[in-house]
Amino acid sequence: MTPLQNDVFLRALLRQPVERTPVWMMRQAGRYLPEYRATRSKAGSFMQLCTNPELACEVTLQPLDRYKFDAAILFSDILTIPDAMGLGLSFAEGEGPQFEHPVRNAADVARLPIPDPEVELRYVIDAVRVIKSNLHGRVPLIGFSGSPWTLATYMVEGRSSKSFQKVKSMLFEQPQLMHQMLDKLAQSVASYLNAQIAAGADAVMVFDTWGGMLSHDDYLEFSLRYAQQVRQLLNTNRDGQQIPTILFTKGGGLWLEAMAGAGYDALGLDWQTDIANARARVGDKVALQGNMDPITLYANPNVIREKVGKILHSYGQGSGHVFNLGHGILPDINPEHVGAMVDAVHELSPQYHQ
Amino acid sequence: MTPLQNDVFLRALLRQPVERTPVWMMRQAGRYLPEYRATRSKAGSFMQLCTNPELACEVTLQPLDRYKFDAAILFSDILTIPDAMGLGLSFAEGEGPQFEHPVRNAADVARLPIPDPEVELRYVIDAVRVIKSNLHGRVPLIGFSGSPWTLATYMVEGRSSKSFQKVKSMLFEQPQLMHQMLDKLAQSVASYLNAQIAAGADAVMVFDTWGGMLSHDDYLEFSLRYAQQVRQLLNTNRDGQQIPTILFTKGGGLWLEAMAGAGYDALGLDWQTDIANARARVGDKVALQGNMDPITLYANPNVIREKVGKILHSYGQGSGHVFNLGHGILPDINPEHVGAMVDAVHELSPQYHQ
Repeated sequence: MTPLQNDVFLRALLRQPVERTPVWMMRQAGRYLPEYRATRSKAGSFMQLCTNPELACEVTLQPLDRYKFDAAILFSDILTIPDAMGLGLSFAEGEGPQFEHPVRNAADVARLPIPDPEVELRYVIDAVRVIKSNLHGRVPLIGFSGSPWTLATYMVEGRSSKSFQKVKSMLFEQPQLMHQMLDKLAQSVASYLNAQIAAGADAVMVFDTWGGMLSHDDYLEFSLRYAQQVRQLLNTNRDGQQIPTILFTKGGGLWLEAMAGAGYDALGLDWQTDIANARARVGDKVALQGNMDPITLYANPNVIREKVGKILHSYGQGSGHVFNLGHGILPDINPEHVGAMVDAVHELSPQYHQ
Repeated sequence: MTPLQNDVFLRALLRQPVERTPVWMMRQAGRYLPEYRATRSKAGSFMQLCTNPELACEVTLQPLDRYKFDAAILFSDILTIPDAMGLGLSFAEGEGPQFEHPVRNAADVARLPIPDPEVELRYVIDAVRVIKSNLHGRVPLIGFSGSPWTLATYMVEGRSSKSFQKVKSMLFEQPQLMHQMLDKLAQSVASYLNAQIAAGADAVMVFDTWGGMLSHDDYLEFSLRYAQQVRQLLNTNRDGQQIPTILFTKGGGLWLEAMAGAGYDALGLDWQTDIANARARVGDKVALQGNMDPITLYANPNVIREKVGKILHSYGQGSGHVFNLGHGILPDINPEHVGAMVDAVHELSPQYHQ
């Protein structure tokens, strides 16, 4: 593969020396960019965009042409695995994801297959190959998956949920069934991420969007345990190159010590978590990625710059920090404000790496 | 006033010895009870129920006739203060609260009055008096208010919000204006709670439903600071009786140490926070109230009993724990399941108070 021209992101994840703090942004290929909206409308639906490797590549690269981001992230959805398991994913306009065949009982769990990523998820792995080739080594490519628990929430609820009543009721009343399902999901996620790594992903990230809705004990037993199983099954050595791994639990700030022991190289932080406090708690076990409040990007560029400076200062001296938002960028952000954030990281961070 | 026949709730809040752990439930007077739905339909709308002291009393007392709860909580809404400020509260069916005149600029903030609770909020204070009289000292009565920050979120957004874009943008770009508004709200909340205390409330609770959406620094500056101002303005001595105070920030588990220094006697815990860890962190500064996942009440009574037992065990020996859910009960819970929870607290908790 083409050698990387910019590996500051990978070095920061591995807590190796860097000359400045790297920066990328969750959902950086997204609706806030007019060029994304143009490609999306050319594709038709969101799923048609995801399943077309050339168009997925196009939107993945768009933010790199505008901003000095230090990583690209595969354009895809977190729910590709349940779709590949046969649950029938669709996106009703303005309604979020829906599954035609939700998982509700033991028979449903028993018939869940573990997808072969090169068969049922071929469009994703092809997208990784196309993007990797078109990146020409400019920056590393991040592969990703939803976490087993987060996938399970959508699979049982059948759609987005506020209370998670169905999936938590299964967890409370049929914990063994939930464990069976999560074990299948952990195997599927690991196999999926391994295929992305083999196809060219330079780092992988597990998005545990809904782990934070669990109690402490349930988080450890039903979310973190399976994120750890995924990690154990990952092949993170590709021809001698170490592939860093990132675990992000939204709302997981209370549990950073436990998360730091799950084997990942870095933890994603939401914006509620104070990054100085987080660093003190995890010590030198993991790097940290985050964590500006996404709503900051509605403010004027001076405010954005000030908030970037506060986070960099809060993390402090030394490597191990990847600048990011604490959650995905919102669709109606002014693209110039993203530039203000990226430029501020480039300009203000070198002083912390001397 | 009639002496209390059961003050175990008040003693636990003050960390005085108790013979068992007291229990009540957020939204215990609510839609899961058929008798509540009957009174509500007699009243007409939700606001007509809130503004009718006799009917508010009726629904406040209903759960006490079914369950061995150790406290009653005033039936009201957290948004009565902004309504009394002239913002025009309404509840569109299935849409949540809405304000006709949201607060968007300096002129809007400047014209916000500090309501006189015995005038513009007279219906609430009358409800406290009617409930107190009809309780005949059975259990203590809890008065409450939304926190200044939580009230501000609704006042600026004009309705419920997921991203809090408008109120956070005001916070980021016009922090002084936000401080002015929060100062007025803190004065209003304190005056409102003082009137509830004077009218008979035996404890008061501040609900900071949306403090957890802020970053660490913003939480301290814009939420906790004003909860602390409220506390400083409270008259918690009524004829020699100490009126305990409770602060509940949903999503505030990361900040318990700071919250424990705000002057309240007790902190409410959401279900994500491990109560043993919380107790270790706050030491003997405050009592703790919580914290079962509300979704547990969908499970069968055996599971409910087991989860109650785990939380009691997790808190451990000694006073300072009030059992509750980590958030309000959901409207479609089976009332028998609430009984299973209450009975389990009564039966399983005496061993922790020997």
